[in-house]
Amino acid sequence: MKDTISVGLLGLGTVGSGVIKIIRENQEDIYHKVGCHVEVKKALVQDASKIRTVDIDQELLTTDADEILYNPDIDVVVEVIGGIEKARKYILAAFGQKKHVVTANKDLVALYGEELFQAARENGCDLFIEASVAGGIPIIRALVDGLASDRITKMMGIVNGTTNYILTKMSKHQLQYEEVLSEAQAKGFAEADPSADVNGLDAARKMAILSTLGFSTNVSLDDVSVEGISGLTNDDIEYGKRLGYTIKLLGIAKRDNESVEISVQSTLLPQKHPLSSVNDEYNAVFVNGESVGETMFYGPGAGELPTATAIVSDLIAVLKNMRLGVCGKSHTASYNEKKLKTDEAIELKNYFRLHVKDEPGVFSQITTLFASQGVSMEKIVQKPLREQKAAEVVIVTHKSNKKVLDSVYDALLAADVVDSVQSRMRVEVC
Amino acid sequence: MKDTISVGLLGLGTVGSGVIKIIRENQEDIYHKVGCHVEVKKALVQDASKIRTVDIDQELLTTDADEILYNPDIDVVVEVIGGIEKARKYILAAFGQKKHVVTANKDLVALYGEELFQAARENGCDLFIEASVAGGIPIIRALVDGLASDRITKMMGIVNGTTNYILTKMSKHQLQYEEVLSEAQAKGFAEADPSADVNGLDAARKMAILSTLGFSTNVSLDDVSVEGISGLTNDDIEYGKRLGYTIKLLGIAKRDNESVEISVQSTLLPQKHPLSSVNDEYNAVFVNGESVGETMFYGPGAGELPTATAIVSDLIAVLKNMRLGVCGKSHTASYNEKKLKTDEAIELKNYFRLHVKDEPGVFSQITTLFASQGVSMEKIVQKPLREQKAAEVVIVTHKSNKKVLDSVYDALLAADVVDSVQSRMRVEVC
Repeated sequence: MKDTISVGLLGLGTVGSGVIKIIRENQEDIYHKVGCHVEVKKALVQDASKIRTVDIDQELLTTDADEILYNPDIDVVVEVIGGIEKARKYILAAFGQKKHVVTANKDLVALYGEELFQAARENGCDLFIEASVAGGIPIIRALVDGLASDRITKMMGIVNGTTNYILTKMSKHQLQYEEVLSEAQAKGFAEADPSADVNGLDAARKMAILSTLGFSTNVSLDDVSVEGISGLTNDDIEYGKRLGYTIKLLGIAKRDNESVEISVQSTLLPQKHPLSSVNDEYNAVFVNGESVGETMFYGPGAGELPTATAIVSDLIAVLKNMRLGVCGKSHTASYNEKKLKTDEAIELKNYFRLHVKDEPGVFSQITTLFASQGVSMEKIVQKPLREQKAAEVVIVTHKSNKKVLDSVYDALLAADVVDSVQSRMRVEVC
Repeated sequence: MKDTISVGLLGLGTVGSGVIKIIRENQEDIYHKVGCHVEVKKALVQDASKIRTVDIDQELLTTDADEILYNPDIDVVVEVIGGIEKARKYILAAFGQKKHVVTANKDLVALYGEELFQAARENGCDLFIEASVAGGIPIIRALVDGLASDRITKMMGIVNGTTNYILTKMSKHQLQYEEVLSEAQAKGFAEADPSADVNGLDAARKMAILSTLGFSTNVSLDDVSVEGISGLTNDDIEYGKRLGYTIKLLGIAKRDNESVEISVQSTLLPQKHPLSSVNDEYNAVFVNGESVGETMFYGPGAGELPTATAIVSDLIAVLKNMRLGVCGKSHTASYNEKKLKTDEAIELKNYFRLHVKDEPGVFSQITTLFASQGVSMEKIVQKPLREQKAAEVVIVTHKSNKKVLDSVYDALLAADVVDSVQSRMRVEVC
């Protein structure tokens, strides 16, 4: 094996710069671990004249991807440009040139993971994706190796740092969504266009990847039911607190028998649940295994260096495989047929906040409505938190199936005594 | 490669039975993951006639270890008998016969890890030890693979379930140590002889293993400074609460520059720290990396099935290596020279609870004593929690070095106005 392995970086933004820093800083440790040196040989950039946060030789920069993809000196390609089509084309080209690939691209892996892993296999190449989910938390390895012996039944993840930051601030400082979002944008915790984060899409991509690996079945993004946090108000957070819950944007992936359900939505979670104390921009994935029971993996979900550690750890794994001559042979198989649960098979509790007519008999009509649908109530709060224009009722149901709860929701919307359904959320019991 | 890999079990107690159950239950998944079947061929027991919690063919039982160690049909040995000398002899014999080994034996690994890994290497064999620390939590893999790229600077671990159970119950129900210990023994959460747990030795073994891997240096059990929980009273827990702390038996391993300190002791931890909410028999390891920042790994630290999942995940790793023909080649190296910090270099805060003479001027004499040693105080509590026979003073210091704090302790013991030093504990800031 060569004494120095050469890496080509596709992209030199925040994470790409972090990769260069870590490789440089930990060169000696890496040498001890894998028996060779690692060198970044080329980095693809859009504008070679731009000032960088990382000190890098100008000659290493290129605006032509082919100088990396078709460079015979480059052994491993690290893809950190993001986006979908270009990244996909580059990665497939890299495999065609028998180069191994490490990527942080959740958007791409969630959509084209199956195709990419197949191309890697066919070309005898490694493809590692640790950085695509939950930044610095080694959750992919935990699912693929650490818990390999177990049958994973449920994963609940706070896998989007931006929304967790927003929800934490809303809850701690009694602020409304819009105020916190602007502040988060100003501080760089939310992007100028935060839609993929706040509408749940980013979390959904990560849950698709986790479900594919955890359940050994090919889950695609379309299989994930997604709702974001933008409709959430501080009222719900305060009611949640009174009822003993914390509200989190939660990815939930469950497997019963052979069927799976995967969703992302604002969820009321008991305050005592370990995920409830995961605050600010931190991520965590709670994993239930049939034998192991409850485990949780916590850490920074994004950021230059945390994400770069995941990439460089993947790089070390590639180097070890190269040294042992076993690249392209450790891919996980999606051997289970995918069966999605129907709405009737999805069991959950719901939280409803209603504005109702302020007249006698309203309460009884609402309880009758729930009863007629066969849904029983666990908790009801009527006393307003502060002065309300409309009378307000908050209800937490007992467990029922999603189809029935959808009917309750429709019936509430149609009911004369209900002015509006202010919010409806999932309630997760532990 | 053979279609069925045969395993010999050394020991068929709780964990051994769990291994059989998981292999049996997840046979099909294991086949999909590694491309071969796994079969337990022989199990070493002390008494073949004993009733078992797992259904096993009587013919598989043996009281003669040689039937496993020298059995040419057996490929992998799983050591779950515990203890030191016999287990060590068996494992070395297994390597001599070119058999791979998976062990859950923290006592042995903490003492003889270096020797065992060397024997494995020399014989081209795999040795996996995931189950030796924190049961079902894949923390060894996290350190060796997931965070391989990073420079780990600190690990704090709740790595003993028995003591965490005791401390949780003492805190929740305002009970004293002895009461909870008896209850824990009755419920099976503590052993009849709980000394290795409550005196911190068990946790120290695990911290020695974690430090060896996390810092890539050979830490031995003697390098760990150890104090247990048996002197702890409910008074300290209540004072801790009032001051904003939770008391945990905490393993702390730190690396500054090239020097390390490793200790196990009752520690006051800020209530907001993620480790403070790790309750009952659960374990967690909090890992700080220079680049990744803060991560935490949480789960069951013991128990039949959780520990067995770690063993069977290791077994799957051995099977993958066998399939790829790379056994004995993935050992981690302890390439850093071990440098232990001197007491002068160990920076920490202390908590003291004193019984003092109930007379004027006492308070001023105590503060003078601290000042004369150059230690400043962060918090002082004088108001008794309940009726005390003696006047009581609780002090939390600012950071100082261990040598100076030892002098303060000696001076307190010698001071006329101090009747007794009821307790002294480490205070950990985040």
